[in-house]
Amino acid sequence: MKIYKEKVELKSDTQIEFIDITEKVQKIVENSGIRDGQVLVYAPHTTMGVVINHNESMLIQDFMRILYKLIPVDDQYSHDLFELRREQKADGRSNGHSHCKSLIMGTSKTIPLEKGKIMITAIQSIFAVEFDGARKRDIIVQVIGE
Amino acid sequence: MKIYKEKVELKSDTQIEFIDITEKVQKIVENSGIRDGQVLVYAPHTTMGVVINHNESMLIQDFMRILYKLIPVDDQYSHDLFELRREQKADGRSNGHSHCKSLIMGTSKTIPLEKGKIMITAIQSIFAVEFDGARKRDIIVQVIGE
Amino acid sequence: MKIYKEKVELKSDTQIEFIDITEKVQKIVENSGIRDGQVLVYAPHTTMGVVINHNESMLIQDFMRILYKLIPVDDQYSHDLFELRREQKADGRSNGHSHCKSLIMGTSKTIPLEKGKIMITAIQSIFAVEFDGARKRDIIVQVIGE
Repeated sequence: MKIYKEKVELKSDTQIEFIDITEKVQKIVENSGIRDGQVLVYAPHTTMGVVINHNESMLIQDFMRILYKLIPVDDQYSHDLFELRREQKADGRSNGHSHCKSLIMGTSKTIPLEKGKIMITAIQSIFAVEFDGARKRDIIVQVIGE
Repeated sequence: MKIYKEKVELKSDTQIEFIDITEKVQKIVENSGIRDGQVLVYAPHTTMGVVINHNESMLIQDFMRILYKLIPVDDQYSHDLFELRREQKADGRSNGHSHCKSLIMGTSKTIPLEKGKIMITAIQSIFAVEFDGARKRDIIVQVIGE
Repeated sequence: MKIYKEKVELKSDTQIEFIDITEKVQKIVENSGIRDGQVLVYAPHTTMGVVINHNESMLIQDFMRILYKLIPVDDQYSHDLFELRREQKADGRSNGHSHCKSLIMGTSKTIPLEKGKIMITAIQSIFAVEFDGARKRDIIVQVIGE
């Protein structure tokens, strides 16, 4: 039984962004030498998410629209007022909505492996989702197995 | 330390459906011979979810109503237009809403084991949730432990 | 490879409550003696959630507001009517909304370890989220690794 871990470094270019990291995760599984087991993809952040879905550009528009509808950017978030009032930003952003989006979407996914490959189909992609860009980010990819 | 994996084959009968797979997951844990560790229940699909909650038929109506309210079937989804325009359906369905539901609900759950049993109470069930039926589906159940 | 498990006992004081269990989880990781691997934090309940985010009191107000907005307490839930009609409460509460909140938020999180520490930053906390308090609850914390 082996445990292997690598960091993926990313740069988001806009406020909300779906970044496809499928190939990077598969590469890390290969680097690990582990062929049977599972991979954990984890964002050590409070304003990001990790999801698995179809990488189709118009579908990603739908995801954005649903996120804006459920958790609007232009609502009033107490977290933003708090940071303004203190004149010291706890995490450097007016980003109440970003934390709420992360809360709903979740910050990790676990995927089983088979013969050294992550068990996803042709229409599944693994996305790191930025809710508070643009900025540099890292994602932890941990492989457990043999 | 052992790793064991089995596929559960399902058939959904309608568009949105909560399919209780608790007994099937428990049977696979028994087949594995693993008594301590955890089980990963994973849907390798972009229009399904995996959740744990109470299997009570009127509560499942509530789940359906909440899903319809948050992500309405009768909204306009770009993904559907894209597929119509191409006259070639990327995944064979007018199912933008189904992908969005899967995004929010998540496609796997991990549950600890104790003495060869999944650690759930009498009112917890494991559901594979169909968002784009009726169709055949498979779910991956992976047990890790000893 | 070792597997270690401990129960965290909690008491919620109000209906909806974010309970920070980060230090308790870290303590259990230390009790396990495991330095590399991962920790699973799992609520064996149908009206709780487990999430990771920033423990900032005004942000937690935002989380509450978003939860109330998406899944209102004052909607009519079939699950509540079912329990009233039977004059026997399946799980002892008029709590349809609580089950729905748990469904959306998810009941576990997995976090990688590094040198015996859970891999979270200074602004990340692990919360057990009560959706149907006040009551006693337990959370399962399982550590796997070496």
